[in-house]
Amino acid sequence: MKRIVFPLAILLIAAASHAQTPPPPLISPEVRSDNRVTFRFRAPNDKEVAVQIEGKPKPIPMQKDDQGVWSVTTDPLAPDYYGYSIIADGVHMFDPSNHAIKPNFLNRASELHIPGPASLPWEVNDVPHGEIHHHFYKSGVVGDHRDFFVYTPPGYDPRAKQTYPVLYLLHGYSDDASAWTAVGRANVILDNMIAQGKAKPMIVVMPLGYGAPEVLLPNSGVWRDRAITDRNFNKFRDALLMEVIPRVEEEYPVIKDRNSRAIAGLSMGGSESLLTGLNTLSKFAWIGAFSSGGMDPDFDKDFPGLDSSSAQQLHLLWIACGTDDGLIEFNRKFRAWLASKNIAHVDIETPGYHTWMVWRSNLTEFTALLFR
Amino acid sequence: MKRIVFPLAILLIAAASHAQTPPPPLISPEVRSDNRVTFRFRAPNDKEVAVQIEGKPKPIPMQKDDQGVWSVTTDPLAPDYYGYSIIADGVHMFDPSNHAIKPNFLNRASELHIPGPASLPWEVNDVPHGEIHHHFYKSGVVGDHRDFFVYTPPGYDPRAKQTYPVLYLLHGYSDDASAWTAVGRANVILDNMIAQGKAKPMIVVMPLGYGAPEVLLPNSGVWRDRAITDRNFNKFRDALLMEVIPRVEEEYPVIKDRNSRAIAGLSMGGSESLLTGLNTLSKFAWIGAFSSGGMDPDFDKDFPGLDSSSAQQLHLLWIACGTDDGLIEFNRKFRAWLASKNIAHVDIETPGYHTWMVWRSNLTEFTALLFR
Repeated sequence: MKRIVFPLAILLIAAASHAQTPPPPLISPEVRSDNRVTFRFRAPNDKEVAVQIEGKPKPIPMQKDDQGVWSVTTDPLAPDYYGYSIIADGVHMFDPSNHAIKPNFLNRASELHIPGPASLPWEVNDVPHGEIHHHFYKSGVVGDHRDFFVYTPPGYDPRAKQTYPVLYLLHGYSDDASAWTAVGRANVILDNMIAQGKAKPMIVVMPLGYGAPEVLLPNSGVWRDRAITDRNFNKFRDALLMEVIPRVEEEYPVIKDRNSRAIAGLSMGGSESLLTGLNTLSKFAWIGAFSSGGMDPDFDKDFPGLDSSSAQQLHLLWIACGTDDGLIEFNRKFRAWLASKNIAHVDIETPGYHTWMVWRSNLTEFTALLFR
Repeated sequence: MKRIVFPLAILLIAAASHAQTPPPPLISPEVRSDNRVTFRFRAPNDKEVAVQIEGKPKPIPMQKDDQGVWSVTTDPLAPDYYGYSIIADGVHMFDPSNHAIKPNFLNRASELHIPGPASLPWEVNDVPHGEIHHHFYKSGVVGDHRDFFVYTPPGYDPRAKQTYPVLYLLHGYSDDASAWTAVGRANVILDNMIAQGKAKPMIVVMPLGYGAPEVLLPNSGVWRDRAITDRNFNKFRDALLMEVIPRVEEEYPVIKDRNSRAIAGLSMGGSESLLTGLNTLSKFAWIGAFSSGGMDPDFDKDFPGLDSSSAQQLHLLWIACGTDDGLIEFNRKFRAWLASKNIAHVDIETPGYHTWMVWRSNLTEFTALLFR
């Protein structure tokens, strides 16, 4: 063996045959001991480069050095996971120096982790870990090949007699079905909450949230055109009720009883939780909506059979939104409507934008309340 | 509700507050009806942009139009999945117009799919689908938190009595544990092969392949420094034999018999399959090595107990490499050594570089031979 050539080496050699010398790799993002973060991006000829960080209202301009490397160091950031993108001459890019990527159909974001104490619910700790199951099926309702994920808690043994309550947990617009685990760290949060006795062991099912996948295409009209928006919600509900739930109840030892069945989601998935859950109280007794939006604001039309009497079957209706979220007024309006109908619910307003930092905290708080 | 603001809208608004007008989205890659592909990349100020496609020896230069958009249209490509990266003024980038990403710790590549006929083993078909299980654990051998994936075939029911043979399937250097499913489409290939009766139903276990994860750090010395290279191989073997296999055999209905246990891998994982398999014939009777490299070329030292007599316990020793792969000579040398020791093995040389196109085909051929 004269020389071992691996893929990286091949890429570097190929790059070298094209440009003269491959530039040295950059470290980006670099998290400093005081939680300030340096971002770096090599683009010697670009005119304007900035970094957009999840939860920051504006992109942060970067400055170029004489090597053509743009950089900026932020103020200290609270320990958490953040999405970010590099905006290079107007184009949102993944950070090419970072292998950690947020899966998403429409947005391009890399992932930054500011490590924090073990007490943070999304930090991986030395506790028993659950498992994530990835299922694939052809949807008769929607007509596509699609997937869903299932979290089973630590100690889950399909051969044992134990049965579990189940949470159906829905992602937002532009996310894929992996979002709640890959970005939301739902499995890590549940592992920690269960280990601390703060959440009951439960199964969490995370389906693909599009009833009309064409809403992901450019100019689909979704959110402006009520017809496609409603088709997306309605077909999602049908796929959940007619395909995902029956399969979960066949394959997993879940308790088949509304008292042990919850539904919650974020943004589009929050509206799906409300539209599906509040209109199917025979199946769901626990409902959570995090930063929800996209529903028709005519709530009497959205929830025709809902009143204070039927809503008494609910054990929990939990409505959360960040106060800096563009959807806060919509959520306040919905809660006012609930109050006007004397429908008991929990109002949660926390600081924050339309971000996963808010939703990871929402999930932590919400799962602590379930199945009690 | 005055206006619905979703994450994409927030990003666009934020971008608009920074640059004057957000540029219109590009379509890239665009697969044409004749399988030519157009790549596009907006970078008005860059001096030199090219696209590097997996399996092509050189980057393909792109040309800039008066809108600052670089593009190139390739010759027709064979139906397959290809990794590719945009090289912008010397920096390897993900394509910002494409949400499909190849997970990898070191290389940055987007994914291109040229759809092909249903007969291609990696195309999703209307056949029963298996399931992918994602496990997390703290490794006592290595000391880190790590993961492994398990494919269970269609119809798998942990509560039933059926037992399965098991293939341990190892990724290459720079890959993560998801590589064989996310990039190699191992689950799709197995679904199709099993549906056609070409492969026996089997469980496939895909562990993280690093015994010394520091080999991923810059300047680790791996592949040049025998000590760290061997530590990586040895600790991987220990984690597999002492941690992963016992857990799999406890949690899955696998047949606990060398005749029903296979090990195979690509590149670094090919060497791990040989080093672990051929030195542990008490556990493995089926071994595959695809484009392997990184082993000490002193094979007498690598395989001290192996001779034609002990090797007769093997049902299959399958050594494959692409003829354009930089590792072809190493593989020929290894096969010559096997021949010199009268150790029966199968020689496979196919056209191709060090690519997933080669490895998906390798997996298809190899799994057809297993457990017969």
